[in-house]
Amino acid sequence: MRVVQTADDVRASLAMRRGVGAVGLVPTMGALHAGHERLIERARTDCQTVVVSIFVNPLQFDRADDLARYPRPFEADLAVCEKLGVDLVFAPSPEQMYPEPPDCAVRVGATAEHLCGAFRPGHFNGVATVVLKLFNIVQPDVAYFGEKDAQQLAIIRRMVADLNVPVRIAPVPTVREADGLALSSRNQLLNAAERALAPSLFRALTAAREAVAAGATDPKAVKQRAAEAIPADERLRLEYLELVDPWTFQPVETVTGPVVAAGALWVGRTRLIDNVLCTPPA
Amino acid sequence: MRVVQTADDVRASLAMRRGVGAVGLVPTMGALHAGHERLIERARTDCQTVVVSIFVNPLQFDRADDLARYPRPFEADLAVCEKLGVDLVFAPSPEQMYPEPPDCAVRVGATAEHLCGAFRPGHFNGVATVVLKLFNIVQPDVAYFGEKDAQQLAIIRRMVADLNVPVRIAPVPTVREADGLALSSRNQLLNAAERALAPSLFRALTAAREAVAAGATDPKAVKQRAAEAIPADERLRLEYLELVDPWTFQPVETVTGPVVAAGALWVGRTRLIDNVLCTPPA
Repeated sequence: MRVVQTADDVRASLAMRRGVGAVGLVPTMGALHAGHERLIERARTDCQTVVVSIFVNPLQFDRADDLARYPRPFEADLAVCEKLGVDLVFAPSPEQMYPEPPDCAVRVGATAEHLCGAFRPGHFNGVATVVLKLFNIVQPDVAYFGEKDAQQLAIIRRMVADLNVPVRIAPVPTVREADGLALSSRNQLLNAAERALAPSLFRALTAAREAVAAGATDPKAVKQRAAEAIPADERLRLEYLELVDPWTFQPVETVTGPVVAAGALWVGRTRLIDNVLCTPPA
Repeated sequence: MRVVQTADDVRASLAMRRGVGAVGLVPTMGALHAGHERLIERARTDCQTVVVSIFVNPLQFDRADDLARYPRPFEADLAVCEKLGVDLVFAPSPEQMYPEPPDCAVRVGATAEHLCGAFRPGHFNGVATVVLKLFNIVQPDVAYFGEKDAQQLAIIRRMVADLNVPVRIAPVPTVREADGLALSSRNQLLNAAERALAPSLFRALTAAREAVAAGATDPKAVKQRAAEAIPADERLRLEYLELVDPWTFQPVETVTGPVVAAGALWVGRTRLIDNVLCTPPA
């Protein structure tokens, strides 16, 4: 396994491998967990060459304290990559990715209007911009993204369509703990009491899914049912819970087909997100 | 020479040619003139495969009447490409390029703030977005741009740097008529009287260059000298004439090194642009 820091080294490392089977990219911010491992395993199965990028992207953080707190266990991350047979790790510094603030960047419109986009100004512009940069540096055939970050996945798919980006996007299902909590690098920021409260987000989304499956079509009623699954506790604050169209990520007015129920829950100082697909009865 | 309309057909047409020498792209809006011919000839000299795109990009027009008036002599354009040994012409319809309005697009910051960017809102976002789409569809090794559109060239270079786009940008000097008028597809919109007035823009820019070469350092004084070269005529209106930094395209406060003198002149209903590099005495 090779570990490089610059775009030039990525291109040089991959030069001999192009055209010899597919190149797969797993873009990460490090702090790798079993969800990331699932992405890497999928890439390892599909592709001749597997590249993992590890970069905590300052452009997508709207809060300096959140950026500072974000976990960065770099040596442990490399061990995970090594174990899973990754060929190349690209771990640039912020200065290498942004020698100066980018003057040309990707701007995301309506797909970033609601949910996380509404609560984290500029977040998805930063995500789309860094993902496009990583695609241009690595030039993968396929890139793997977790379904846990559903709005991010929708935006990346939209960017690929809108800008004719020659990369296939492969979504990978969310990995969960036994109690339903979606794996996230942020989970390690929770203390024991917060960890015990955290699965209530998934329980709320599951309640939404059950309500839709039982025939509820009014998003307000569905959201009410979901919110009831979150215990009254001062450490918990539901930032949003919405039913949105799976492609546009616009809130639906009536449930007439599959919708994504997506939520963000503050657990103490830590913000967790999750989502489930809800399908009305046939 | 092959002429195709879809991104899929471009990729299929080029599949066998990749890796066999370079692919060069000349992006155009058609109405090809000797300036475009110079671009195509450069590409033909440098590259194994030459692709010309012909697409009048609605996204970069801020005025519907300008878009409607823009010349589209498609058969003559194909004859020019054929004559110059172009391998592939990509001529998509607006619906093929934009099946729906793009939700993810390139946004240009400070480099688009002045000059044409100030007078044509959204213009350079549209230019950058369509150029990135064309790059992603054709995946050229090199792309050729005329120096006549200097701010556009600066923005494309900035986009390539900021987004790590794996394309080399090759600038090609402006081609001029004997009287100095820069070749432009818009020149054919001029009547005979307007055509006779049109070279005053280049004369103004030349006056700026001479003033800088003679040691003038105050942009205001230089611009004054330049403006004097434009005759008082009701058909002529100078939209802007600025001295800007060649990389950032920000107006300079004092001339301390090479600057670009760039101007836009309305001649009747037609807007012409031009620029020259000005170098102070050693």
